[in-house]
Amino acid sequence: MKPYIVQNENALYYECGFSCDNALFLRFGADEAYFLTDGRYVAEAKENITNAEVVDAKRDLIKKARDIIKKARLKRIVFDPLEFSVVKFDALSKNLNIVFKPQKNFSQKKRIIKTPKEIDLLETAAMIGRDGFDRFEQILKTCGVGENEKGLHYKAESSMKFGGQNELSFKPICAINENAAKPHALPDKNKTLKNGDLLLLDAGVKYRRYCSDRTRTTEIGDNATFTYKDTQKFKDPFRQKIYDIVLRAQKAAINAVKIGVKASDVDKAARDVIEKAGFGKYFIHSTGHGVGLDIHELPVISPYGSTVIEEGMVFTIEPGIYMPNEFGVRIEDMIAIVDGKAKVLYGDK
Amino acid sequence: MKPYIVQNENALYYECGFSCDNALFLRFGADEAYFLTDGRYVAEAKENITNAEVVDAKRDLIKKARDIIKKARLKRIVFDPLEFSVVKFDALSKNLNIVFKPQKNFSQKKRIIKTPKEIDLLETAAMIGRDGFDRFEQILKTCGVGENEKGLHYKAESSMKFGGQNELSFKPICAINENAAKPHALPDKNKTLKNGDLLLLDAGVKYRRYCSDRTRTTEIGDNATFTYKDTQKFKDPFRQKIYDIVLRAQKAAINAVKIGVKASDVDKAARDVIEKAGFGKYFIHSTGHGVGLDIHELPVISPYGSTVIEEGMVFTIEPGIYMPNEFGVRIEDMIAIVDGKAKVLYGDK
Repeated sequence: MKPYIVQNENALYYECGFSCDNALFLRFGADEAYFLTDGRYVAEAKENITNAEVVDAKRDLIKKARDIIKKARLKRIVFDPLEFSVVKFDALSKNLNIVFKPQKNFSQKKRIIKTPKEIDLLETAAMIGRDGFDRFEQILKTCGVGENEKGLHYKAESSMKFGGQNELSFKPICAINENAAKPHALPDKNKTLKNGDLLLLDAGVKYRRYCSDRTRTTEIGDNATFTYKDTQKFKDPFRQKIYDIVLRAQKAAINAVKIGVKASDVDKAARDVIEKAGFGKYFIHSTGHGVGLDIHELPVISPYGSTVIEEGMVFTIEPGIYMPNEFGVRIEDMIAIVDGKAKVLYGDK
Repeated sequence: MKPYIVQNENALYYECGFSCDNALFLRFGADEAYFLTDGRYVAEAKENITNAEVVDAKRDLIKKARDIIKKARLKRIVFDPLEFSVVKFDALSKNLNIVFKPQKNFSQKKRIIKTPKEIDLLETAAMIGRDGFDRFEQILKTCGVGENEKGLHYKAESSMKFGGQNELSFKPICAINENAAKPHALPDKNKTLKNGDLLLLDAGVKYRRYCSDRTRTTEIGDNATFTYKDTQKFKDPFRQKIYDIVLRAQKAAINAVKIGVKASDVDKAARDVIEKAGFGKYFIHSTGHGVGLDIHELPVISPYGSTVIEEGMVFTIEPGIYMPNEFGVRIEDMIAIVDGKAKVLYGDK
């Protein structure tokens, strides 16, 4: 094992089951590891961490880390250059006479294969997230029409949070018609929901820090549903056509997932369906991304994704078609590779 | 003017009135500035930015920034080493043969003096934030007792967000009794609110991106109030004593604020009151911090704060006393330096 240092909160949590907003974790070998934090967090860290020595580094974690590194007489230590700012890295490494070996996404690479227990946690998160979509569906029925996008966004958040009992894994996207065609539209106070509108919801929660992620697109009216993706009905034939293409693309990608396949081939399965239907240029993002402690993890499911799919990976499959100034459709589920196959983590009921 | 580059979202917004999550802003002189972003944001950037050329940098902003820097034949360019990760800075600066001059907090230093218009925005944010405290007070009266901390936290968020019409400036802190003594306590599902409990709320909203920040501490019962700080009544004499000391400390600090005084002297005014009362070791943080586009800006109002107070600065005054395993009291308002004096931005009604 190469000695390493991490500071990202989810990387810390993965190492020792605890994290806080001011800490460093160093591991030099199977039996030598340190969790450095300040006085505010020392007691809680000691209660929670069993696989590392908790060190009260007072006001200066970097100085304490340098002392520990010097004392251990290391020759090299791995760090993630995406985690450290120029200032922090300089302070940590200056004049130490040790090789700091950069490894991008060091912790995410360690985390790319989930244990069965982690998959259970992600499945539970997905289930709780799906319940949030169901609540949002009910809320829409009673007080959706007439509400503006800011209000809808808030109702989506409330549905996911369930009275504060769940934490969001990211700020939901809740967009009407042409705003659903902008993958990064902000909620618009002046845009209100009408019957017949298309509505896209992309949202997730955390369960014991593990994230869920899901998207549904529906049409407002008696049959609006964020629960079922297979039976969506749109009155406008063009919307229905686009929806059906996206759904076929998503299923093609899910079917393409198996051990030994490259991530780019999974992406291609979705992209081929959309391209053959003539809408390739309106599918403007990757097919999916890993999910775990971070909402965006490895592997990247894109045309450039060189990762080979393995047992235990968890990622989203979320193709979309975005017709500028008209509407956008995206359908997203999380899948886990279990027994060599894609298992959808609470897609539909 | 020295050429500079910024990437932080609030730094971007300050430069040109627009920001997004993938952009760089470069200014080389009064008439030469560039806003680099990707295709998702170009149209919106062009609509909003009048003082810089908007450049579609496609997939590689860093490469485009290097091209522009090379073409301008700069000798040196200022950057904030806290803003750039090791990876990004290396990619930006490698083999360019230009001096990248680090200036920590470059943008926050530019922003330390607020214009009258910015003070108006901050005052409006403070007013909207105070209304959120009033709503929370009302909610507590009808359904506070019996609620757990997670639920209270959610109700506090809802009160501040007001049906999604306001954005939070940070996640509120809403803590009962001994949890109020931990400045960074997480909401506890197993801790429910009872009559007679002490409750601390620290929360804020944004108005046109400018942040508010406020803290009140009260006792649950018929007279619970998050509106007035001067008339708080605690049945327990020790709690009342601590509260009164903190309030005196806050007023002493506000009275100490004037142009030409050092930030450390403002801190000292609060700290002296608490120390003389014998509770110095329970005041475990700084007296305040600047507020603006970021919730934490310059100046730092601490024993080490060397900034000299000037017209147009805006910062919090928030002393506290934290009795471990018992309770904590903090009282916080925002003040602006207007006409040479501290103006409290919507403290009490």
